[in-house]
Amino acid sequence: MSPIKSFVDYHPDSQFPLENLPWCIFSSPSNPSPRVGVAIGEKILDLATLSSVAKEIFEHETCPIVPERAKALFYQPCLNLYMSESRDVHRSFRSFLQSLLSLDGPLRGYLQDRRESLHAQVLLDQTEATLHLPVRVGDYTDFYLSKEHAFNCGALFRSKENAIQPNWWHIPVGYHGRASSIVPSGTPIHRPAGQYKLSPTDAAPVLGSCMRLDYELEMAFFVGGGEQGTKADGHGEVNELGQPINIREAESYIFGAALLNDWSARDIQAWEYVPLGPFNGKNFGSTISPWIVELSALEPFRVAARVQEPGPLEYLREEKRSTWDINLKVEVKGSRDEEWTTTTESNLKYMYWTMTQALTHHSIGGCNLRVGDMLGTGTISGPEEKNWASLLEKNLGGKREWAMRSGERRTWLQDGDSVRITGLCQGEGFRVGFGEALGKVESCKVKF
Amino acid sequence: MSPIKSFVDYHPDSQFPLENLPWCIFSSPSNPSPRVGVAIGEKILDLATLSSVAKEIFEHETCPIVPERAKALFYQPCLNLYMSESRDVHRSFRSFLQSLLSLDGPLRGYLQDRRESLHAQVLLDQTEATLHLPVRVGDYTDFYLSKEHAFNCGALFRSKENAIQPNWWHIPVGYHGRASSIVPSGTPIHRPAGQYKLSPTDAAPVLGSCMRLDYELEMAFFVGGGEQGTKADGHGEVNELGQPINIREAESYIFGAALLNDWSARDIQAWEYVPLGPFNGKNFGSTISPWIVELSALEPFRVAARVQEPGPLEYLREEKRSTWDINLKVEVKGSRDEEWTTTTESNLKYMYWTMTQALTHHSIGGCNLRVGDMLGTGTISGPEEKNWASLLEKNLGGKREWAMRSGERRTWLQDGDSVRITGLCQGEGFRVGFGEALGKVESCKVKF
Repeated sequence: MSPIKSFVDYHPDSQFPLENLPWCIFSSPSNPSPRVGVAIGEKILDLATLSSVAKEIFEHETCPIVPERAKALFYQPCLNLYMSESRDVHRSFRSFLQSLLSLDGPLRGYLQDRRESLHAQVLLDQTEATLHLPVRVGDYTDFYLSKEHAFNCGALFRSKENAIQPNWWHIPVGYHGRASSIVPSGTPIHRPAGQYKLSPTDAAPVLGSCMRLDYELEMAFFVGGGEQGTKADGHGEVNELGQPINIREAESYIFGAALLNDWSARDIQAWEYVPLGPFNGKNFGSTISPWIVELSALEPFRVAARVQEPGPLEYLREEKRSTWDINLKVEVKGSRDEEWTTTTESNLKYMYWTMTQALTHHSIGGCNLRVGDMLGTGTISGPEEKNWASLLEKNLGGKREWAMRSGERRTWLQDGDSVRITGLCQGEGFRVGFGEALGKVESCKVKF
Repeated sequence: MSPIKSFVDYHPDSQFPLENLPWCIFSSPSNPSPRVGVAIGEKILDLATLSSVAKEIFEHETCPIVPERAKALFYQPCLNLYMSESRDVHRSFRSFLQSLLSLDGPLRGYLQDRRESLHAQVLLDQTEATLHLPVRVGDYTDFYLSKEHAFNCGALFRSKENAIQPNWWHIPVGYHGRASSIVPSGTPIHRPAGQYKLSPTDAAPVLGSCMRLDYELEMAFFVGGGEQGTKADGHGEVNELGQPINIREAESYIFGAALLNDWSARDIQAWEYVPLGPFNGKNFGSTISPWIVELSALEPFRVAARVQEPGPLEYLREEKRSTWDINLKVEVKGSRDEEWTTTTESNLKYMYWTMTQALTHHSIGGCNLRVGDMLGTGTISGPEEKNWASLLEKNLGGKREWAMRSGERRTWLQDGDSVRITGLCQGEGFRVGFGEALGKVESCKVKF
């Protein structure tokens, strides 16, 4: 496939070519209201402004969204209302946008040659924009889909022989996370305070600032309106309470994906998690990239998912198991560092369970999913050591130091450290990227 | 304290006297838009209609809410916006409503003697109203605050000697629950399908409909605007990310309480919960009563909380530990039964950890709470067997049958069973009640 050309100039290596068009919520100096846009190269196409200053564009026969509806969908502080539209609308509108922004095509003239002033109004530099949390997340569920991550953690906490729990082979294990503390890239993360034991043999815990602060390289998938679309409040149910989603339909409910750093406080987590799971060890912050890449943009990167042995129960069986080939990277930079140190290189394709299996399992008991729900993959580790996607794995549970590029030794994250996750799909002659999920560790607000 | 008198007639035993005034979201045959009201006796005072047909009432000097704001707050499909007001506003407006509805007082004449037609417009029979989910819950956190429940479960799963986990004595243990499946009283609950093992010695699980369906008697507390109030979208943060809430301020963030049945699928839960906690065993439905009783209405029922030994860490220490004396009851009725069978009688005061400790612990790592968040107590068991607040405890993990009033034997809930939770505080000459959290078990939608 050769790249399609846009009249908007961008580098051939751009992560936001016409093949991507990821969604965002942004504001700008001239208009501080958060609203809907898509990235193209180094620019953002301001769909909100477009819907009010050039409504004739939305009257074109190939546009699935009428002008009034476009205004309602794009003058929004979150993508939820657009995401609640049906998959057909999403696909058609994506094609329409590609056509609108392409160098040659039936919509040539609508935006491209039209008026200088229109360009200035609706295409702005990303560097000028402030990017906001793109989705108002109803519920956040985090899964545990990587076999290598489950093995590495189990081996540390138990033994290599009993590393993976018996249920893990049958269940795409998940738990409910915290929606309120999901923040967009760039939001500082304060080191949490919490209870932990200074030594495993201590009788009682202490309250202190976390001493084992970690990242987790994950991806987040967002629920959209599915084949039918949902009611118009942006949090519509995609399945009624009590009614599971069939695995054959699961993918239709996924609108798109982003990068996710699910920060973890390992000492707090270790002390609190029995028997109800992680809580304060996780809920102090989860950073997502501000761009939502539609599944349609990932289609060229679809690859076979790993073979599952033992085979899953019937309701989780997929005829063609697939996932996406997305290269993922974590880098860390200390406050005095000039360069980033790559700490993890992994790929979404390493996951043992697929997102469609996770979503189906989520609903099998009748749990209702809603537009805007966020499903995290869990830490995406892979078979090689460089793929280990948390410091817990990299430092063998705190027992092994690793080196920054500066030569400085590290075990866990320190105050002032920045952590950056990036993701990139390599196509033939083009790339589809996810931007970044960036967060800097700031000192604990509780003083000890 | 002798009861205060209202010009609205109700029985001295009413659970909704002038001392209560619980909040709800309701609709009526003549106006199907869900809106805000408060209960008084057998009636609902329609605050939305009141704000538009009698705005001069809101101009009274003792009313803390101006007419325009009243319209904005009460023409709402959820209580969140009102809850986001400050505690002062909540207290003043509660006094104002009591005055407005009282037989004698400074506001006599505003509503009481004014016009026949006004009564008919703003006071409607509860039997005519449909009650909706009162709060749009951002995040739902469920705790595990009852010592007896922790002990009973631990003794079943491990042994009496190791029943309570070491961390439980130091942490008001909590986990993130599912917000989307919180439903108002009366919503049917479908028996969930899920994975479980038919026998503990089986190598592999099966998919089937839950065979160990249970209730959990809980109460739910809802986060309000605190001393300052929050921004106006009804989901405002009460603490910034990274900034814990001091235990001395914790209670100010609790707006009110309701009854909660956190339905549980014990077989699904048992198989899935290691290591990340309950998931599909819980997320198929949580029933709450439709009335939110303000903490101010519970003030006469404040009692000392249980002594904690070992004492908690400093950040969880309260000078005067208190809770509320709320009698709680669970009843079950089979589809062929004419009478309800009381299966649990308990009391909120039995909890070992207080809600203020739970809320403070929730925030200690910097997790931001938002208006509309729901905090569940966990199963409220007490010291006597009749206080055991789940069937898991009552049937000793499925090993002991119990009798319905009809003589029928039961272990777990059957299809067609209704479960009703009620709660009542007994004052001197008056009662403050919570209405009911009612749900009927319907058959699993997945066929096997």
